[in-house]
Amino acid sequence: MTTDTAATIDLSTWSCPLPLADYPEIVMGHGGGGKLGNELVEHLFLPAFRNAALENLGDAAVFDLASGRLAMSTDSFVVQPLFFPGGSIGALAINGTVNDLAVSGAEPKFLSASFILEEGFPLAQLAAIVQEMSAAAKTAGVQIVTGDTKVVERGHGDGVYINTTGVGLLRAGISVGPALAEPGDAILVSGTIGDHGMAIMSVREGLEFESQIRSDCAALNGLIANVLSAAGGAVHTMRDPTRGGLASTLNEIASASNVGIALDERAIPVRPDVRSACELLGLDPVYVANEGKAAFIVAPECADVVLSVLQAHPLGREAARIGTVTTDHPRMLVARTAMGANRVIAIPVGEQLPRIC
Amino acid sequence: MTTDTAATIDLSTWSCPLPLADYPEIVMGHGGGGKLGNELVEHLFLPAFRNAALENLGDAAVFDLASGRLAMSTDSFVVQPLFFPGGSIGALAINGTVNDLAVSGAEPKFLSASFILEEGFPLAQLAAIVQEMSAAAKTAGVQIVTGDTKVVERGHGDGVYINTTGVGLLRAGISVGPALAEPGDAILVSGTIGDHGMAIMSVREGLEFESQIRSDCAALNGLIANVLSAAGGAVHTMRDPTRGGLASTLNEIASASNVGIALDERAIPVRPDVRSACELLGLDPVYVANEGKAAFIVAPECADVVLSVLQAHPLGREAARIGTVTTDHPRMLVARTAMGANRVIAIPVGEQLPRIC
Repeated sequence: MTTDTAATIDLSTWSCPLPLADYPEIVMGHGGGGKLGNELVEHLFLPAFRNAALENLGDAAVFDLASGRLAMSTDSFVVQPLFFPGGSIGALAINGTVNDLAVSGAEPKFLSASFILEEGFPLAQLAAIVQEMSAAAKTAGVQIVTGDTKVVERGHGDGVYINTTGVGLLRAGISVGPALAEPGDAILVSGTIGDHGMAIMSVREGLEFESQIRSDCAALNGLIANVLSAAGGAVHTMRDPTRGGLASTLNEIASASNVGIALDERAIPVRPDVRSACELLGLDPVYVANEGKAAFIVAPECADVVLSVLQAHPLGREAARIGTVTTDHPRMLVARTAMGANRVIAIPVGEQLPRIC
Repeated sequence: MTTDTAATIDLSTWSCPLPLADYPEIVMGHGGGGKLGNELVEHLFLPAFRNAALENLGDAAVFDLASGRLAMSTDSFVVQPLFFPGGSIGALAINGTVNDLAVSGAEPKFLSASFILEEGFPLAQLAAIVQEMSAAAKTAGVQIVTGDTKVVERGHGDGVYINTTGVGLLRAGISVGPALAEPGDAILVSGTIGDHGMAIMSVREGLEFESQIRSDCAALNGLIANVLSAAGGAVHTMRDPTRGGLASTLNEIASASNVGIALDERAIPVRPDVRSACELLGLDPVYVANEGKAAFIVAPECADVVLSVLQAHPLGREAARIGTVTTDHPRMLVARTAMGANRVIAIPVGEQLPRIC
């Protein structure tokens, strides 16, 4: 079992509330329907996530949601290490699901959180993760309303796996989807790509650069709300390029919309240290995962408006227009390189970087 | 990694659709954002779960739900073995979440499904599990609208872990909860207890009886709908006694409602083979998990009506009235034994039977 801790989180300052302190590590009994499990809920999860729906502690959370179309998204998080520069599995578990709802045009509202804990996992690390989830949920403006905890024996997990599932209310008048990109549309990205994947890989591979590569892990619902307020009708497709990176995301859109996508490779923002790390590991930034970036495909006449709205937001300062949707080479992603050549960016077969999220 | 298969499921008759057949086992690449992951979705998950919301394949599912109060419930399933007499992790993953919504007074509607697969897990087993999920969802009348797949390295999982999260619409005029039991209320259980836990333990321990103990794994939303239609206003509390069994469930209700609960031990239905297996393993059936039973706490004047509605349903034929809510011994569960003595049934500390669900 990995017990990585972040340089930025001092676990020694956290003390377990009694009676959890009697168990410094997760034991199988924490997964049973008894006192130990209840103590985790009462002393750890409830204080961190407190809200009316959760406090009821029924088999399901109950809440009101204005009528309308709902969006629902689920993700399990198995990232290693659990803490990394710029984030943690806890922050990722909240932001990942928030972003999936946001790029679907929904306002994220309520999340569930389910933990699969490995026997022997230090309770102090679980507490630090739960606090990261609590902080991320507050920042994103969502509530964790229901949860579950299971424990598996040593050697059948990896510290902790977290599932979050979220529901949100679809914004009225918004119609976005991977199949709605149209020839002529502009393609924008909200900032530098590859930061998350290379932050994880730098820790795993022990790479050192002049500056530390930090994950871009962030909730994008605020940024996306601004874009939709300014130019909602003009936004045809939004996606967050996580696993498989920008390459997978844009390939999927090209297939779903039966269009070609032409990128200007020089326009794609990449941090110099991320580019160096990619070169060192033989990776292409377009295939590397992001956890706080979104790609927007918008009607060309609104591209400038969307770009300026993005750049006005702290999470979009380095947003850029990177390409165009075309009738040429349908279902293919083609990049014009700095040398002026064209190269096809294929969808990857698997994943270059396992357990990145 | 365990590769148990059920006697009742002939995996040899299932053939992987191409091109999945090229990979008889899960590889790390199935968890990436590329072709291999997409093939799992297109050739395995979509055909099994097909519905309009899922087919959209966006980052989130989108669906309409009539306005009102919503219920949301999440559960991760880590049961071993994956297939057992009367069920599988697949059926359990659907029924468990359906039941949590149903006992909360909601009509289960939409489920997410998220898989954590261990590298090397046979694809044929995954397909069998997915087919069990599909069948269970059809029986329960719910749709699987969104999903996720992650892959972890060998030795960091146990074949497959599944999270399901469900949303449902709360029935109008129904107000149930663990804190709403009232002195004088009757306590009913929908059938024999301990079947699920002892079915699992019999397989694990290699116990043989004259008859095979089968899990009671079933969706209770139909049964519960009948009860609520007949006597909705009189139902104060409903719970499905899973982990920790009837003992945990009733103890939690006694605490939440600040009441005592008096059981007539002779009235609690237990199958003879389950009782024998419990005696052999030194277990008490009241602590053993159920996956197709519900406990109802109802106003005494409606107890007979609820009992007859339960007994008229195929899943409630052996329903029984087993006790009374009392002002005596608040926050305690006390059973009158066959000998006429009283014994306190305490909440368990942990779980006698790990990874039962």
